Amino acid sequence: MSDESFYGVTLTGQDSTVSWDVLSNDEDFPRGQKLIIKQILLGAEAKEGEFNVVEVFTVKDSLRIPIAVLKAGETRAVNPDIEFYETAVTFKLVKGNGPVYIHGQNIKDEVEIVDMEDEETDEDDEAEEDEEDLPKKKQRLENNTTNNSKKN
Amino acid sequence: MSDESFYGVTLTGQDSTVSWDVLSNDEDFPRGQKLIIKQILLGAEAKEGEFNVVEVFTVKDSLRIPIAVLKAGETRAVNPDIEFYETAVTFKLVKGNGPVYIHGQNIKDEVEIVDMEDEETDEDDEAEEDEEDLPKKKQRLENNTTNNSKKN
Amino acid sequence: MSDESFYGVTLTGQDSTVSWDVLSNDEDFPRGQKLIIKQILLGAEAKEGEFNVVEVFTVKDSLRIPIAVLKAGETRAVNPDIEFYETAVTFKLVKGNGPVYIHGQNIKDEVEIVDMEDEETDEDDEAEEDEEDLPKKKQRLENNTTNNSKKN
Amino acid sequence: MSDESFYGVTLTGQDSTVSWDVLSNDEDFPRGQKLIIKQILLGAEAKEGEFNVVEVFTVKDSLRIPIAVLKAGETRAVNPDIEFYETAVTFKLVKGNGPVYIHGQNIKDEVEIVDMEDEETDEDDEAEEDEEDLPKKKQRLENNTTNNSKKN
Amino acid sequence: MSDESFYGVTLTGQDSTVSWDVLSNDEDFPRGQKLIIKQILLGAEAKEGEFNVVEVFTVKDSLRIPIAVLKAGETRAVNPDIEFYETAVTFKLVKGNGPVYIHGQNIKDEVEIVDMEDEETDEDDEAEEDEEDLPKKKQRLENNTTNNSKKN
Repeated sequence: MSDESFYGVTLTGQDSTVSWDVLSNDEDFPRGQKLIIKQILLGAEAKEGEFNVVEVFTVKDSLRIPIAVLKAGETRAVNPDIEFYETAVTFKLVKGNGPVYIHGQNIKDEVEIVDMEDEETDEDDEAEEDEEDLPKKKQRLENNTTNNSKKN
Repeated sequence: MSDESFYGVTLTGQDSTVSWDVLSNDEDFPRGQKLIIKQILLGAEAKEGEFNVVEVFTVKDSLRIPIAVLKAGETRAVNPDIEFYETAVTFKLVKGNGPVYIHGQNIKDEVEIVDMEDEETDEDDEAEEDEEDLPKKKQRLENNTTNNSKKN
Repeated sequence: MSDESFYGVTLTGQDSTVSWDVLSNDEDFPRGQKLIIKQILLGAEAKEGEFNVVEVFTVKDSLRIPIAVLKAGETRAVNPDIEFYETAVTFKLVKGNGPVYIHGQNIKDEVEIVDMEDEETDEDDEAEEDEEDLPKKKQRLENNTTNNSKKN
Repeated sequence: MSDESFYGVTLTGQDSTVSWDVLSNDEDFPRGQKLIIKQILLGAEAKEGEFNVVEVFTVKDSLRIPIAVLKAGETRAVNPDIEFYETAVTFKLVKGNGPVYIHGQNIKDEVEIVDMEDEETDEDDEAEEDEEDLPKKKQRLENNTTNNSKKN
Repeated sequence: MSDESFYGVTLTGQDSTVSWDVLSNDEDFPRGQKLIIKQILLGAEAKEGEFNVVEVFTVKDSLRIPIAVLKAGETRAVNPDIEFYETAVTFKLVKGNGPVYIHGQNIKDEVEIVDMEDEETDEDDEAEEDEEDLPKKKQRLENNTTNNSKKN
């Protein structure tokens, strides 16, 4: 099962930025967290004919690329339907003054993390596992749960 | 398994609002209920060139953001494909006179609720569980079923 | 497993209607049947600048709402991606002369029905179930199979 | 598990047709095969203002209906997202000279076929099944595998 | 479970190409790897009225076909939602000077590979399997894991 919530942020003014609010201890590579961007929409207040360009930066791959090119009178909205998995991301309005609205979904996949731990244990290292290793794994899962529950 | 139904509402006239019809006892955070918005469509009667802006307000995150900017002759429909999970939501026509049609899906995930109860029972508190706690849980599930069946 | 097939119908002429071809005995609330509308498309023969509006009526919720507003030169197609679950539906061309093409998917989920029967039996009423009840349930499933196979 | 591959074909010239390349012995109703059409796109060479209409014909339902109406300067692409399941299909450019590109996905669901055979065996005819019937079934599955592997 | 990451590349200048970065030893047919293209977007710097055409070439089927026809002032973005499964692919800007941005998802499906091996073993050849066969299979899986983990 996963915990999911609506994601909605606004970029206003040239060079304004917004970072995805990561919940994990590991801020750059949040385990089991995914951000899906479904729609990027130009506000009614945007100037006719002015380009509004939204660029994304992903920490995991150090990738910087425009994901929306909007222009009143031509392109009011795009539907990229792209996913950022286990990486911090920042959105920046590199052209135009907005407002630009970014909509999507924030997913924290808790069970998947547990399953992967279990699988490894069963298949590979059951025998070699010593007493010290087990508590460490448990602790990692508990930390994770704690982080997630801050949100809820 | 989940119970799903078509969601279709109309906004007519400036500042008109419509709230998602929550079925749970907990009106602000309905457990296991999800609303998906697939399409927001401007009616044929809308004035040429007039902006029609739909704003959503979500109770869980206290978030208020436009999700549709429509204009006859430019943008007749948007397909946000966004989800509101376990939160009451209200849609408001903050600009324009409509009519604006909102289409989507209403999902009540009954089994997931049961599973989560079971899981907790198995993993954490099997031992500490006393006689009084059990009937209370059962009752919550029964209430839930009762609420849902009102709809059907 | 589910049985699925392409759904494609045409509306031609003001006020023309088409009803979803329900296979169940229960014509208003077909169990396990779902209709998904993916695209509504205006034909090349449609008059330039004339509005073509498709309205849906759902029996389950007695809901009547436009789902497509098309206009040659402005909006040639919409992609509502909406679902009608266990309800008879009718589409009507309330404005314009078409032709308008409606495309989607027709899904009959057979296994789900069987599972639900089984579940109820196992969990709730195993004890209270008498000899008369069982044959009745069986018969319902057989009828269902019979109806579906007419289609195939 | 299913075997999937990209589907991409081109229609050029009025009345040109292309048929879905079915792999099964049963050419009209290929078991476990599905074609999904995601995008239909008008080429840059198409004449400005000329309609290009793509019609589909499905053998299973003997259904003939346009699924794309394209026009340079108005509608460059549509995204029907429609599926054709276990039926031969033919696409025809009934209006215009193209080029028109059809994109999607070709899916062969091998395991599902095996499951369905097994299910029938377990539930219905275990007793009535004689020695002659069993080898015939096996053979059908082997043929199927042979056909699929030609593709791979 | 699958490992997924955002895919974003830029084509600038006529005839520029970009190849999908395959991780497997088998560069032409990477097992368990899939590339999904969700959006192809024309940059704000593109010349008004100039066509920008992106062509894909797939090694598995030796297929070459345009998947995006973009033109400032007419079509700013397309959403093909197409998948390339277990094949190397190359994107080429065959018309126009861009910039054109390609967005999607890169998926490596590790568990599926393991499952298929297991299934075969259990159902068909358990008896005929000799000592030599088993280590060979194991080795194939280990190689595979090694390849994937280079990425992680």
